[in-house]
Amino acid sequence: MNSAIRAITLTSAKLGLQCVGFLHGYNGLINQEYIELTPDCVIDITQRGGTLLKSARCDAMLEDTGVQQAANALRKLHIDALIVIGGDGSFRGIHALSAHWHGQLIGLPGTIDNDLAGCDHTIGFSSAVNTATVAIDKIRDTANAFERVFITEVMGRHSGHIAYNVGIATGAEAILSFENYTKSDTAKLVQQLQRAITEQQHKHGSFLIILAENLWPGGAHALRDALNEQSNINCALCVLGHIQRGGAPSAENRMLATELGVAAVETVYQAIQHDTFRAATFMLGKINGVLTSTPISTVLTRQKPVPDSWVKRYRDFLAEGETSSLYTNFLN
Amino acid sequence: MNSAIRAITLTSAKLGLQCVGFLHGYNGLINQEYIELTPDCVIDITQRGGTLLKSARCDAMLEDTGVQQAANALRKLHIDALIVIGGDGSFRGIHALSAHWHGQLIGLPGTIDNDLAGCDHTIGFSSAVNTATVAIDKIRDTANAFERVFITEVMGRHSGHIAYNVGIATGAEAILSFENYTKSDTAKLVQQLQRAITEQQHKHGSFLIILAENLWPGGAHALRDALNEQSNINCALCVLGHIQRGGAPSAENRMLATELGVAAVETVYQAIQHDTFRAATFMLGKINGVLTSTPISTVLTRQKPVPDSWVKRYRDFLAEGETSSLYTNFLN
Amino acid sequence: MNSAIRAITLTSAKLGLQCVGFLHGYNGLINQEYIELTPDCVIDITQRGGTLLKSARCDAMLEDTGVQQAANALRKLHIDALIVIGGDGSFRGIHALSAHWHGQLIGLPGTIDNDLAGCDHTIGFSSAVNTATVAIDKIRDTANAFERVFITEVMGRHSGHIAYNVGIATGAEAILSFENYTKSDTAKLVQQLQRAITEQQHKHGSFLIILAENLWPGGAHALRDALNEQSNINCALCVLGHIQRGGAPSAENRMLATELGVAAVETVYQAIQHDTFRAATFMLGKINGVLTSTPISTVLTRQKPVPDSWVKRYRDFLAEGETSSLYTNFLN
Amino acid sequence: MNSAIRAITLTSAKLGLQCVGFLHGYNGLINQEYIELTPDCVIDITQRGGTLLKSARCDAMLEDTGVQQAANALRKLHIDALIVIGGDGSFRGIHALSAHWHGQLIGLPGTIDNDLAGCDHTIGFSSAVNTATVAIDKIRDTANAFERVFITEVMGRHSGHIAYNVGIATGAEAILSFENYTKSDTAKLVQQLQRAITEQQHKHGSFLIILAENLWPGGAHALRDALNEQSNINCALCVLGHIQRGGAPSAENRMLATELGVAAVETVYQAIQHDTFRAATFMLGKINGVLTSTPISTVLTRQKPVPDSWVKRYRDFLAEGETSSLYTNFLN
Repeated sequence: MNSAIRAITLTSAKLGLQCVGFLHGYNGLINQEYIELTPDCVIDITQRGGTLLKSARCDAMLEDTGVQQAANALRKLHIDALIVIGGDGSFRGIHALSAHWHGQLIGLPGTIDNDLAGCDHTIGFSSAVNTATVAIDKIRDTANAFERVFITEVMGRHSGHIAYNVGIATGAEAILSFENYTKSDTAKLVQQLQRAITEQQHKHGSFLIILAENLWPGGAHALRDALNEQSNINCALCVLGHIQRGGAPSAENRMLATELGVAAVETVYQAIQHDTFRAATFMLGKINGVLTSTPISTVLTRQKPVPDSWVKRYRDFLAEGETSSLYTNFLN
Repeated sequence: MNSAIRAITLTSAKLGLQCVGFLHGYNGLINQEYIELTPDCVIDITQRGGTLLKSARCDAMLEDTGVQQAANALRKLHIDALIVIGGDGSFRGIHALSAHWHGQLIGLPGTIDNDLAGCDHTIGFSSAVNTATVAIDKIRDTANAFERVFITEVMGRHSGHIAYNVGIATGAEAILSFENYTKSDTAKLVQQLQRAITEQQHKHGSFLIILAENLWPGGAHALRDALNEQSNINCALCVLGHIQRGGAPSAENRMLATELGVAAVETVYQAIQHDTFRAATFMLGKINGVLTSTPISTVLTRQKPVPDSWVKRYRDFLAEGETSSLYTNFLN
Repeated sequence: MNSAIRAITLTSAKLGLQCVGFLHGYNGLINQEYIELTPDCVIDITQRGGTLLKSARCDAMLEDTGVQQAANALRKLHIDALIVIGGDGSFRGIHALSAHWHGQLIGLPGTIDNDLAGCDHTIGFSSAVNTATVAIDKIRDTANAFERVFITEVMGRHSGHIAYNVGIATGAEAILSFENYTKSDTAKLVQQLQRAITEQQHKHGSFLIILAENLWPGGAHALRDALNEQSNINCALCVLGHIQRGGAPSAENRMLATELGVAAVETVYQAIQHDTFRAATFMLGKINGVLTSTPISTVLTRQKPVPDSWVKRYRDFLAEGETSSLYTNFLN
Repeated sequence: MNSAIRAITLTSAKLGLQCVGFLHGYNGLINQEYIELTPDCVIDITQRGGTLLKSARCDAMLEDTGVQQAANALRKLHIDALIVIGGDGSFRGIHALSAHWHGQLIGLPGTIDNDLAGCDHTIGFSSAVNTATVAIDKIRDTANAFERVFITEVMGRHSGHIAYNVGIATGAEAILSFENYTKSDTAKLVQQLQRAITEQQHKHGSFLIILAENLWPGGAHALRDALNEQSNINCALCVLGHIQRGGAPSAENRMLATELGVAAVETVYQAIQHDTFRAATFMLGKINGVLTSTPISTVLTRQKPVPDSWVKRYRDFLAEGETSSLYTNFLN
């Protein structure tokens, strides 16, 4: 996130545009709480986690009054363009604002969950995946030493992007996510996990289950209890939680954030030069390596599924029959 | 742990002693499941987490029958000396064994919790503290960005060594551990945390509470709920769990494990040379930089408290009155 | 690399194909030194740096005799398909082999330098960039504390992929690479760096120069000496070297290696099923997210340049005139 | 270093003492360039490498004029006590100042080299050892893959503390340092390394030599060339350099720096309360876990050798005769 702020600030300075940063998300916009962003502000932030500008939910933006206050603030401050870095919620704010304000609104995809259409990867996703991967490598050490089954819950809101990436990268024996699991399948799931665990366990002593947050009612604790009750398997548990959000960002994330930040300001600059503000609000992202703009309305409605080929492997794993052990083998 | 196994193996080879490693803790001893440990086995394990020899609880050692089986196995295999790396439970096993077997029994302190008398630091402690510190640095990033209160639960069994070390290293605003907190103080605790959080929050936007595991009935989730019910503060939560156990060990741990492993074998070698096996079982540890042997019975009964000076600061923090804000200041 | 070996092994097992791994690169092929690769061999290697199969230059493959020995070995062992993971040199070996052996030859791009056409990223590149980025973040700390200019030499053979990625990710003040620098420009380079350093230094106290290996005659030491002689600036120096090659691979690399390894075996399997071995040898890579096969001959002759937009920024930096300070600003 | 600054600042605030920080080492003292250090200044610095106050050599302090300017500045600013964090050079400054200024002078040991008497560990040492250890673990991966001999040069000024700690922690096959090597022994060294390398190489394919900086005339490059000329062994090379200095400090370092910073201010506070400034200047350090003050003059003249037992092992390694291979075995 800081890399995007830095790129926006430096590119603005280079092109002679004045740049301010609103604090605490939309709250800072509504309250006109902001700082001027000059090159001196962004020295040595590219390697820092978190965000210089602070972040916060803003419930006011869910109400029309709040949106109008935000639009009024933009007018009062003579803002030409607003760049919003965030996820689903932030983009709903953009969408709402566009009805009341006619400056240029640009979204940049910034969420660790990677659940936004219009881009291959969101800013923050690569860092989260790498952090979770390193953590699960440590869990593998302990799981191997004690020959145990571990359930590790990873983030992802309502999609399995983190779960699948982390699961494949760490060679997890099972990934339980929205894409390969129907909630009514509990009994079957337990039965299959039990069989797979039995088959695998004597081979190398550990079995890692990656669980997507929000999938299992009651979370990892409930899944552990269910497995424990319905089988004689005693799983250890780890909920990675917020460590997935912070820390020095990965090189991939810094590059992506820098490119999108530069592109956003250059887009604004072109619009100002040619006086051709686009009516539609849009998000900038990279799709297949190409800088792409997608209407915010599309981003808000379209899904970005996990690649089918990944899901297929792990769905097969949950299929009954002779093949399952092969697929389990594949998984580690 | 692997560094100790490596040092034991290589020193044995150097001194011409034959060395075997029992698998799965005492289970491997009882079942005579072991591998010969030669220099080739321990190539490139010093940097690996976990343990080459696997680890496991062994409930059989809680019964006299199991202990006798273990002693019989040692006799049958003509073992002269048994080196056990572990914590409290492992040492109870040594103690029990010593009544039925008269070879040399040596304990090496191996637990992340650092709750063993007879040594300043246990093997594993430094790695766990560093891993937790890095994780909490990441949480600080998010806590700062969202200006939130975070409760992070760290390991430590029944002592606050990890909690205090991690708390001081990360500049946590509060440490809640056995040493500075009485369970009946709940209402007072909530009240004081509430006040401290209020005082601190406007200053820099985040407040980290380090919670020792097993301290709060119901754990971090229950503390969060209590704080939420009794105040209007909404804490985020992270239970670090098993990531504290694995991963490449710190340089400190590798050094300590190497020194203790070498010393254990050299002790055995001297005993064999001079035919002077010590009657008493003991643990080897470093106290104030000096290699020290402490009877296992002493290790099992004596406490190793967290240094008073550390506790005092955080107890003061929880004292009522004017001074608390100063101490809170100190804490960050 | 290990992730690719693991994926190839597990997919082969799943599809019922027998799989062996030649040791020490082509040397193991020529000498028929190999191991059978079964799922048990590849447990817990996905998180390890280096390669299970060892690696080595093989000068014999530069001679026709060696290539024929390799081809004979493949025939003798009844090999249907050979998958080679490597860079330029390894692929020259494939090309040579294809004249003497008619099984299926598949290359997978495995070099940290990312200098292979036919793929966006090579296996190893992301890990190298992340490792170098973390190292340079540390150098920034020291550079800031002492307010110094640092030259850091990074790998990349004859291309600037690592230099540009690392330079942008770390916010380096200058990137000196093949793409933006002509060797005859020495005097101009020194003059411009001197000016840029002067302009920047009072602002935040440090100035990082990323130097691509093989660019400057005599390397980083010679550049430092040249800067020192021709200006009064005293640079500190770091040659990152081989630490860029090892360590736990990034999640991106593990994913990429897994996908390419699976795809390679599935390609072989299809060919065997349908008896349609392709005459042409090819490399499998991902371009814009799509699995793509490119003839080895094309890979060996086509360049993969660093994106123009990145180069442009840093070339402008070296341009004379008023704009340079703006671009310098951009760079940090 | 930042953890010490933070502890000094917060303890001063707690005790009601006013605290300023001079910038750029003694330069800031001479030029009266300083900042007031309040709790707000030191938020979130405990996890940062480098130093808030910048650092720099100060050649002026080598001359009597400069020392008098510094003393005058201290008088003019009504400073009661000066705490200096640094190594040998900084302490020479303290020593010189003590002849011209009669406030309380306290040194804190702050150098990565650990070459200061009066303390077991200096602030910075643990972080440097851990960073080097992680880097050499990566080099081991590559050395194993290519079955090569690597020379890695580590820092340490004129002592082998880093070399021995890193060497033992990484299981290096050889440590070349001041303590076990006489410069006239070149031919013998080459011969013994050659033999050891030959003995080891077929066992596991890699051989790591840790070289202390300043030991070998011409450094690691010269050693490589010497080995290459006098044997047929081709070593790869890595000079770790400044990456050992930066990065998030280890938990050990943060703890040590916090304890010493608190102790320094409490010492000053006691002196002010009781009006009993000590005539002698001294350094605060921890020896065998106990806070200890040692006169600066002693610190400047006494050596702190690497423990004999460590040196002995690696000296034996270099002894001729049958035993060497045992010790080589020990080393890995």
